[in-house]
Amino acid sequence: MSHQDTIVALATPSGAGAIAVIRISGQNAIAIAEGCFRSVTNNKSLSNQKTHTIHLGHIVDGEKYVDEVLASIFKGTNSYTGEPTIEISCHGSIYIQQEIIQLLVRKGCRTANAGEFTLRAFLNGKLDLAQAEAVADLIASDSEASHQIAMQQMRGGFSNELQNLRQELLNFASLIELELDFAEEDVEFADRTQFIALVSKISEVLKKLIDSFAVGNVLKNGIPIAIVGEPNVGKSTLLNALLNEEKAIVSDIAGTTRDAIEDQLNINGIMFRFIDTAGIRETKDVVENIGIQKTYENIEKAQLVLYLVSGVSIQDGSFKVDDLLKEIERLHKKYPNKKIQVLVNKMDLLSEEEISNLNTEIADLILISAKKNIGVTELKEELTQLANLGTISNNQTIVSNSRHFEALNNALAAIREVQKGIDHQISSDLFAIDIREALHHLGLISGEVTTEDLLGNIFANFCIGK
Amino acid sequence: MSHQDTIVALATPSGAGAIAVIRISGQNAIAIAEGCFRSVTNNKSLSNQKTHTIHLGHIVDGEKYVDEVLASIFKGTNSYTGEPTIEISCHGSIYIQQEIIQLLVRKGCRTANAGEFTLRAFLNGKLDLAQAEAVADLIASDSEASHQIAMQQMRGGFSNELQNLRQELLNFASLIELELDFAEEDVEFADRTQFIALVSKISEVLKKLIDSFAVGNVLKNGIPIAIVGEPNVGKSTLLNALLNEEKAIVSDIAGTTRDAIEDQLNINGIMFRFIDTAGIRETKDVVENIGIQKTYENIEKAQLVLYLVSGVSIQDGSFKVDDLLKEIERLHKKYPNKKIQVLVNKMDLLSEEEISNLNTEIADLILISAKKNIGVTELKEELTQLANLGTISNNQTIVSNSRHFEALNNALAAIREVQKGIDHQISSDLFAIDIREALHHLGLISGEVTTEDLLGNIFANFCIGK
Repeated sequence: MSHQDTIVALATPSGAGAIAVIRISGQNAIAIAEGCFRSVTNNKSLSNQKTHTIHLGHIVDGEKYVDEVLASIFKGTNSYTGEPTIEISCHGSIYIQQEIIQLLVRKGCRTANAGEFTLRAFLNGKLDLAQAEAVADLIASDSEASHQIAMQQMRGGFSNELQNLRQELLNFASLIELELDFAEEDVEFADRTQFIALVSKISEVLKKLIDSFAVGNVLKNGIPIAIVGEPNVGKSTLLNALLNEEKAIVSDIAGTTRDAIEDQLNINGIMFRFIDTAGIRETKDVVENIGIQKTYENIEKAQLVLYLVSGVSIQDGSFKVDDLLKEIERLHKKYPNKKIQVLVNKMDLLSEEEISNLNTEIADLILISAKKNIGVTELKEELTQLANLGTISNNQTIVSNSRHFEALNNALAAIREVQKGIDHQISSDLFAIDIREALHHLGLISGEVTTEDLLGNIFANFCIGK
Repeated sequence: MSHQDTIVALATPSGAGAIAVIRISGQNAIAIAEGCFRSVTNNKSLSNQKTHTIHLGHIVDGEKYVDEVLASIFKGTNSYTGEPTIEISCHGSIYIQQEIIQLLVRKGCRTANAGEFTLRAFLNGKLDLAQAEAVADLIASDSEASHQIAMQQMRGGFSNELQNLRQELLNFASLIELELDFAEEDVEFADRTQFIALVSKISEVLKKLIDSFAVGNVLKNGIPIAIVGEPNVGKSTLLNALLNEEKAIVSDIAGTTRDAIEDQLNINGIMFRFIDTAGIRETKDVVENIGIQKTYENIEKAQLVLYLVSGVSIQDGSFKVDDLLKEIERLHKKYPNKKIQVLVNKMDLLSEEEISNLNTEIADLILISAKKNIGVTELKEELTQLANLGTISNNQTIVSNSRHFEALNNALAAIREVQKGIDHQISSDLFAIDIREALHHLGLISGEVTTEDLLGNIFANFCIGK
């Protein structure tokens, strides 16, 4: 794979549509496109046209007309990739798309690998690595929250701030390493007070970013909620009731069929993932039970546990409030930080007395009828509050990428070693190693430090054409 | 539905991809786009930019950044629709596409109906009606042949020629109607020799176009081939063998899964449709048999009948050559114009003597082994020859649209009435009606004559965004 090749790929989704866009990038992009483009408005060749202009013409293969197209020209480094680029907007038949791409390949293009356009944008300094990664997140975003995080990161986000701090740290590192060269003379080029202030500032910024990952990760991937309850308690009616309130949002988005993401709901712009989990009560005697293990695993993953009880079981007497309370207590002990919400469904079957008794016996109970749409709004409120930690403004900095999270943690560990070194007044040649370690991890985020493997891993997750 | 509205739609295929293009067209297109676009390169508003230029910026919803996009500007009538147009090239997430479209709708756009951009191009005189129809054909084209027909039609094709002839006819019609006003004075404004020549020329052109429909229709929709044969003769192995030779073409085209179009094969750029049909022999005693009716219906539709015999039935003696010959003769009588090709599959099971005997007894026999890929190339040659009537050059005029076919037939019928009138020297006020009739039908093709219903029918078949 050479970065000197001129690459071509379909940039729009595959399939038939009104138009499709084929993107060519590389030093020969304009020359190659010129070889199969005939303008209908003037005789100027594409290379004599100005950058950022659009030209109507035909793609021709010898004497054969392949399509009438618009060719957009981006010259010099004024393009997404930072290389000369041509975008051909053709009629959206699959046949035509393939004909044009195959023609361009015959004329000297190579078909692009996944993410290769964005990789080039990174290599040519148009984006830092964190911004490049945000492009893939942006395309994958399916809720307002995940979209806002990706957008914020693509616009520079925290990587700008980190790059500046890294640069300051780098300057100090040079001074400190210089001191080492003059070790005999006991000079101090690096102002220790300023240095201590910088290290402490970096440490704070890193801590803040690391903390934001808890929010960023769930907002990006959806907030996991475990629903504990027996099969017939009304789980899918509940999901439908929650969904119906948001019908407009879901049905407006073409392609998000409910079949595929059956247990994901977008509520007020935040994605929730519902994990169906069998009840625990009936199996309390069998510790080895596989089902109960699975239930615990699901609860482990969840941010909130919805404990669903059916009004039917209360009416027919099979529900025992003491069993439930013991159960909840056990869960509270096992997961002291998890919120467990008891939810009685089919409340419309219960008498006022039964409801009043339940409310006395169980704290913070929510009673709903998913079918009759009673209490659903209250439940939604509960779910949205859960996510409230994550209401994102345009300016708030949130880390949502686990690669960044790891690098931030490693950088913080190294910075803490530096702080320790300063506190214990150890020799600067010892903590110089820790500074270099911190510089390395900070550099991995924005891509000032990269390896082939790292780039390969990141861009392999992109789609072709991006 | 007002043609004054500014309309918006996704122009690229639905789904996620690297980029998506949202198209806005109408008198307020630029003003509306301006209201939610913030340039990153300069402070000029979009309306102060030149036509056919591209601008990097952000789509903003108040203070919220929705996406970083490229906005392409087409001013005045210099666009596909002939109206001011903005094309927004955004990141291809479904979420972003919807956010931008919804934002534009809030700012005053209306979501476009199917084909509405092309309808406007027609109404604004950018395309005639036949060209507009070719746009939909072009997008639907799935083979070189159907693509070439659509491309030729979109570039003007026969509708230019017809429009010119219609104009000449219209001139004569005016002169002849003028003569009628001066009927008492017995003047002849219209030169009869020239008029006769024109009518005869129109008649010839129409006849040629009508004849081309037989080819155009099959090339557009695929050449129907009936395979007559019992279930186990190896039909699907045969299709696979034909397909394998063309593997490159089929597998290169994303989205054409074999499941969906199982019995369509693209061979040398031409689409063939294979119609599976049960054998006839076993049911020759039962005239009322529904199966045999179905077989005849399928043969009726086909251009070529492949009569498939298995080598196994020859070996085990269940095949009787006399029965086959009688069968073929019967089919020849019933369908004198259809080519019937006998094909022996699994020929590798036969001895040289058996093969030699078969060749003596059955004329023009093709022996193949679909499994061992023997004789498949010869068969392909046979199929391609069948389509050879339809080898299309860039200049050849072919009608493939049944609406045009009907209008051409009606126009020809009227023109023949005019010719008859001239031949019988009937009064010009009588054939003036036929001239008007011919003018009407010719005008329907290019859209000089239209009705709301006609336009509604045509553009309802387009996709949204085109």
